[in-house]
Amino acid sequence: MARPPVLTPQGQDFPRWYQDVIAKAELADNGPVRGTMVIRPWGYAIWERMQREVDDRIKATGAQNAYFPLFIPQSYLQREAEHIEGFSPELAVVTHAGGKELEEPVVVRPTSETIVNSFFAKWVQSYRDLPLLVNNWSNVVRWELRPRIFLRTTEFLWQEGHTCHATQADAGAYARRILDEVYADFMESVLAIPVLRGRKTRRERFAGAVNTLTCEAMMRDGKALQMGTSHELGQNFAKSFGVAFSTADGEQSYVWQTSWGVSTRMVGGLIMCHGDDSGLRIPPRLAPTQAVVMVVKEGDGVSEAAAQLVSELSAAGVRCELDARTDTAFGRRAIDRELKGIPVRIEVGPREVAEGNAMLVRRISATKERKSLAGLTAAVTEALVQDQDLLFAEALARREGSTADVGSFGEAVEAAASGWARITWAALGHEGEAAIAEQGVSVRCLLRADGGVPERDDEPELFAIVGRSY
Amino acid sequence: MARPPVLTPQGQDFPRWYQDVIAKAELADNGPVRGTMVIRPWGYAIWERMQREVDDRIKATGAQNAYFPLFIPQSYLQREAEHIEGFSPELAVVTHAGGKELEEPVVVRPTSETIVNSFFAKWVQSYRDLPLLVNNWSNVVRWELRPRIFLRTTEFLWQEGHTCHATQADAGAYARRILDEVYADFMESVLAIPVLRGRKTRRERFAGAVNTLTCEAMMRDGKALQMGTSHELGQNFAKSFGVAFSTADGEQSYVWQTSWGVSTRMVGGLIMCHGDDSGLRIPPRLAPTQAVVMVVKEGDGVSEAAAQLVSELSAAGVRCELDARTDTAFGRRAIDRELKGIPVRIEVGPREVAEGNAMLVRRISATKERKSLAGLTAAVTEALVQDQDLLFAEALARREGSTADVGSFGEAVEAAASGWARITWAALGHEGEAAIAEQGVSVRCLLRADGGVPERDDEPELFAIVGRSY
Repeated sequence: MARPPVLTPQGQDFPRWYQDVIAKAELADNGPVRGTMVIRPWGYAIWERMQREVDDRIKATGAQNAYFPLFIPQSYLQREAEHIEGFSPELAVVTHAGGKELEEPVVVRPTSETIVNSFFAKWVQSYRDLPLLVNNWSNVVRWELRPRIFLRTTEFLWQEGHTCHATQADAGAYARRILDEVYADFMESVLAIPVLRGRKTRRERFAGAVNTLTCEAMMRDGKALQMGTSHELGQNFAKSFGVAFSTADGEQSYVWQTSWGVSTRMVGGLIMCHGDDSGLRIPPRLAPTQAVVMVVKEGDGVSEAAAQLVSELSAAGVRCELDARTDTAFGRRAIDRELKGIPVRIEVGPREVAEGNAMLVRRISATKERKSLAGLTAAVTEALVQDQDLLFAEALARREGSTADVGSFGEAVEAAASGWARITWAALGHEGEAAIAEQGVSVRCLLRADGGVPERDDEPELFAIVGRSY
Repeated sequence: MARPPVLTPQGQDFPRWYQDVIAKAELADNGPVRGTMVIRPWGYAIWERMQREVDDRIKATGAQNAYFPLFIPQSYLQREAEHIEGFSPELAVVTHAGGKELEEPVVVRPTSETIVNSFFAKWVQSYRDLPLLVNNWSNVVRWELRPRIFLRTTEFLWQEGHTCHATQADAGAYARRILDEVYADFMESVLAIPVLRGRKTRRERFAGAVNTLTCEAMMRDGKALQMGTSHELGQNFAKSFGVAFSTADGEQSYVWQTSWGVSTRMVGGLIMCHGDDSGLRIPPRLAPTQAVVMVVKEGDGVSEAAAQLVSELSAAGVRCELDARTDTAFGRRAIDRELKGIPVRIEVGPREVAEGNAMLVRRISATKERKSLAGLTAAVTEALVQDQDLLFAEALARREGSTADVGSFGEAVEAAASGWARITWAALGHEGEAAIAEQGVSVRCLLRADGGVPERDDEPELFAIVGRSY
C-alpha cells in the first residue's frame, strides 16, 4: 500500500496544499486573535533574508531607515479624504489605556502616510532638505474579515518608504526607481519570481495616490499576486499636512511625494510560485540554509567527513548546516528538508565514505548524483547557480504558457479561470473593468505594447493584464 | 561676546541637556500620542548597529528568531497572577476593530510570555524538542504616565527571548549565558559601557520571574540605568499554559524557562554614559559612521584628495562618508558632526592638499593633529581602536570614583545623591530596601563580595548596589 502523501496534492486542492505546506514546513501558525500569525523560525529566517536583500537595495537608492510610532491619533487619518475612506473599514482602535478611557482614541497604524507627513512638515524647510528619503520596517494592522496566512493577515510585517521631492518629475522617477532597482530586481534575481511591472487602473490605486506602480506575479494555480507597489502621491498629503519648502528662488512650494512597500505577503508568493507536491522550493540566493550535509548513518570516518564538508562549503561561502541527528530516521529527516525547500542535500554514510564520495540531491532540478568528496564543493556551488536560473525559467515559462491574448470581456473572464488574459485597454476600459469585477476578475496592471510601464492611463495602445488574484 | 552654547551644559541641567542632545543630534522626536517617539535616521542607524551586534550574539548561543503577534487576548494575561498584576496598569486595549466592537478586547503586547507559551505548549512534546530557544525583535507598548524619550516610552523597540529547558540548571545556565555572552559582552565591548552584572532583589524582579539578572550602568549624573535583564521563570508560565514534555524515561514534566530583553532604552544609556557638553560621543565599534572626510573648502585637487581618502578608508574597513557640502558653512557642519558623535573627522582643504596632509580630529580624545595623507588611513584605524578603549576606561573610572562603601541606610541615601553606594545586604535587607525606596533610592542589584553574580538571594556576605535610577 502506497504511503499517503505528506501534503494534499496541488492539483487536488491548491488552497489546502498551501495550508499544508505552511504547517508541515513549520513556516507559521495562526495566532489566537483572528487573522494574526506567528511566524515560526524557518518562516522568519526566510523573511530575514528578504529583509536584508531589500534593505540593501533601498539603502543603495539613498534612503535611510527611521521609525514612526504604531499609534496614530484618529484625527490624523481624517485629513486626507480618499485615504480615510479607503482605510476606515480596516482600522483597529485603542480606546482604553493605562486603566482609563482615552480622550481621543488612537488607531493602530494601517500605513503611516499621515503620521509621517506630520513630521515631514517640521523637517522640510528648504530645497536643501530635498530629496528626503525615509524607510520604515514595521508591523501594521488592517482588520481582515477573510484572512489567509502570509497573504492577507490582520497584522503583517513590511517596509514602507516615504519620500519628498522638489518636482513631480523627481518623485515619478524615484517611484519608478524603487519599482525597478529595489522590488523587481529583488523579486527576479533573488526570489526567482518573474514579475510584470505595470501601472494600476484608477479603481485599483492606493487610497490617496495619483499613480500606483505594481509588480505582479503569477502563482502556480494561475492566480495573480500583487508582490509590491510604489506610489506617486502627488501633493495630496503635502497639502493636507502642510509639507512645503522654499525653492532656490525663495518661493514656497508643496513637496511631491512617493510611498512604497513590500511585506510578509512575499513569503506567500514564494510558497505559491515555487512550491510543489513535496513542499517548498527556495531559490538558492534566498535560502537561509543553502545546503545541508546529512549523516545517513554513523560509521568509520563518517562524522569527520561530514564535518569536513561543512567546513569546506562554509569556506566557499555556502550557507550550510550539518544534520547528524541519527537518532531520527533518515527518511523522516530527508522529507523534512524537502518540505522546507532547502536547495541542496549532501548525504554521507559509511558506504559513501568508504568509496570517497557523497550523494548530491538537488531539490529544484530533482536530481540525485554521486560525486567525489574532492569535487563536491565545486559541484554544490555550481548547482546553486544553475538551480536559481532553473527556478526562474520554470516560473517564466509557466506564466507565458498561461497568459492568453483575448479580444472580449467574456474571453478574458474565461481565460482567468486558469491564468491571465491580455486585452487592449481600449477594448476593456473602465466599464469592462467593472463588468469583469462582478465575476471576481480584476485588471492587475496596464502595460505598453512592448511590456513597458505606461506614464499615463490614457496613453494610446495600452494593454490590460487581467486575472483572478489573491 | 561668547556664542551661547548649542546645548544646555550637563552641569547646569542634566535632563535638559539630554533633551537638547536628542533634538540637536536629530536622534528622535516625541510622537503625537503621549509617550510615543519617532526615531530619526541617525538615531535609528545607531539602533540598527545595536540590533546587528546583539542579534549576532543571540544567534551564536543557538537561538533562532521568530515573530509573535502584537495582539494578545486579554484572557491570556490573566493566567499568570503576578504577571497580570505587574502589567495591568500599563496596558493599551483595542476594543473596536473592523468597524465593530470586539467580543473579547485585545491587548497590545507589553511583553509576550503569555502568547509565546500558548504556542510552546503545542510545539514542545518530547525532550528531543529541548532546549527550545526563540527570540523576537518587535515593538511593545506599556502606557507611560511620565515618559522620557528612549528611557521610558509608551512604545519601544526591543528583542525578547523565550526559552524552554529540560532542567532548572539548564535554564539557569542559559539565562546567565545571555547575561554574560550577549548583553554584558555587547555593552562593554561595543557600547564601551561598563556594567555591573548582578541579581535583582525580590522587590525588583520581573512580574512572574523567580530570578532576574541585570546589567546596571552608571550615567554621567551618577544615576543608574538598567540596561538589560535576563530572567529565570521557573515553571510558572509552563504550569499556567501547560508547556510539558515527556522525558527520556517517558515521564511528563513541565519545562523550565527563561526570558530576556534589551531595548531602545540602550540608546538613552549611550547618550547619558558618553555624551558631553558638545553632544553625543559614539564608541567607534558601534558608530554607523566612524569617520567623515570633510572638504573644508574647494580648491585645486581637494575633491580628488577627499574622494581618495574615502576610498582608502572604506577599503580598510572603516565605515566612512564624504561631506563635500561646501555650500554650508564649515563651522556649522563641524558642529553637526560633533553633536552626532562621529568618532573621527578628517578635514581637507586647499592648504592641506598643497602640503600633502590633512587634519585628523578625534571626538573622544578631543585631539586635533596634522597627518600626512599617506599615513592617514593607518592613523584613523589606530585612533578608532584607542578611542574605543579610552571611552570605556573613562566610564569605568567615573563609576568607580562615584561608588561609595557605606554602612547604613542614611549614608546610602546620601551617597545616592551623586552616585552609587555599596552596602552589605545583611545591613540593608528587605526593610532597609523599603526605607530607602521612600527616598527614591533602590537596590540596583546584589553582588558577591568578589563582584560575582549570586546564585541565591540568601547567600551569606552579599552586597547591595544602591542608587537612584532612570
